[in-house]
Amino acid sequence: MYAIGERINGMFKAVAAAIQEKNPEPIQELAKTQLAAGAQALDVNVGPATADPLAAMGWLVKAIREVTDAPLAIDTTKPEVMRRGLEMAGPGSIINSSKGQQDQLDIFIPMAVEHQASLIALTIDENGIPRDANGRGEIALRVVAAAMEKGLSPDRVMIDAVILPVNVTQPTPGHVLETIRNVKLLSDPPPKTVLGLSNVSQGTTQRAIINRTYLVMCLAAGLDAAILDVTESEMMDAMIAAEVLLNHAVYCDDFLKAYRS
Amino acid sequence: MYAIGERINGMFKAVAAAIQEKNPEPIQELAKTQLAAGAQALDVNVGPATADPLAAMGWLVKAIREVTDAPLAIDTTKPEVMRRGLEMAGPGSIINSSKGQQDQLDIFIPMAVEHQASLIALTIDENGIPRDANGRGEIALRVVAAAMEKGLSPDRVMIDAVILPVNVTQPTPGHVLETIRNVKLLSDPPPKTVLGLSNVSQGTTQRAIINRTYLVMCLAAGLDAAILDVTESEMMDAMIAAEVLLNHAVYCDDFLKAYRS
Repeated sequence: MYAIGERINGMFKAVAAAIQEKNPEPIQELAKTQLAAGAQALDVNVGPATADPLAAMGWLVKAIREVTDAPLAIDTTKPEVMRRGLEMAGPGSIINSSKGQQDQLDIFIPMAVEHQASLIALTIDENGIPRDANGRGEIALRVVAAAMEKGLSPDRVMIDAVILPVNVTQPTPGHVLETIRNVKLLSDPPPKTVLGLSNVSQGTTQRAIINRTYLVMCLAAGLDAAILDVTESEMMDAMIAAEVLLNHAVYCDDFLKAYRS
Repeated sequence: MYAIGERINGMFKAVAAAIQEKNPEPIQELAKTQLAAGAQALDVNVGPATADPLAAMGWLVKAIREVTDAPLAIDTTKPEVMRRGLEMAGPGSIINSSKGQQDQLDIFIPMAVEHQASLIALTIDENGIPRDANGRGEIALRVVAAAMEKGLSPDRVMIDAVILPVNVTQPTPGHVLETIRNVKLLSDPPPKTVLGLSNVSQGTTQRAIINRTYLVMCLAAGLDAAILDVTESEMMDAMIAAEVLLNHAVYCDDFLKAYRS
């Protein structure tokens, strides 16, 4: 599984403070910690409180680039902030994210092509979040068709089927599992699938077990990537065990350690 | 998920000793402990060492029936031992198990009809264990067809796709997941699916995490029932979380406790 570390996000107080004070060290520490814990890419989000998100994104990416060349997922809804992040991060980045409606795809797909980036596309459109897997699948199909039309290979599209908190809508985890399975049939090569995992447990009292259990379920359905807290070691253990059981990682007696090294 | 407790099995020393000494108390204690931990049925296996398995099965079932009316899964390959167990246990029992070849089905399907029992059928036949999901599916189809022909409703057939240790054959867990999904398309009503879970981790050094991770994966694929150690509370927590995420159990903040009560 392609693990995207979620911790460099201005919604966390320490990150917001570092951005405010232009102090790169906590950011660089978070980058290194997440990479050491198994992240293959790092999500970068300036958070809701920044007065100048464009400058903050530029500063954040520059600070991270001083310590790692790992791919960055530039996490913003604002096209100009996205563009700044992609420019600073370089080729191989991830656009996080576009919605599935045409006006958004018209902006972000060409941006992905121009910056040699992958594109996370949410199965949300002008009508909101579909109520079932079929609705999610229709949006995913529209995204893949638009990508192919504009020269972005489907395997550089990552469909995010939009998980909602299980305590808010209990049928949604099942719909998302079904969508993950269905999306693989949309094209050849198929698009990738990704999930902003921790939303499934938002507002619940037992977040850790919900997160790791749902991650394993999604992997069994064929999930390729997740944005998650890679420092939750029990969750990463479960992810590694699932990868071994899916024959994506080689079994050895000490597989938890072997996968990490 | 329908949980069948695996602990009353003569391969465990304490059970073998109780059978040998005709001491019902350890057996009855195991029955009560497993039911309290969430078992809805109890597997009953006299083990490999018993000189007179027919008498041992009769004694075991009688001992258990003194403390519970819960369904029993009579676990033997010997038809006469099976018959004794079913007679002693009463209607609603589970035959564990028949292989998928015709000569076995000819014995155990009529026995299930006669004793109002369900039938666990392994996807094994005279050629052994198939090497992939298609081979398993073919045997499952043969079992379902034979059951329908002889008046056993498909939803009283439980297909066991035969998991092997992940350290012996790493593709098998994936084949079994695929079989669990496919089996649901075989008939209407579809057969149930069941798994002797702990075999997946046999001989590995990290059995607990392999067992509970694979159980969650199987539940996401649609598994209905498992024979497992219900006293492994972390595994049962994972199972309960999966049931909530699949919308099979109602979410509440204290769902782990609520499910158990």
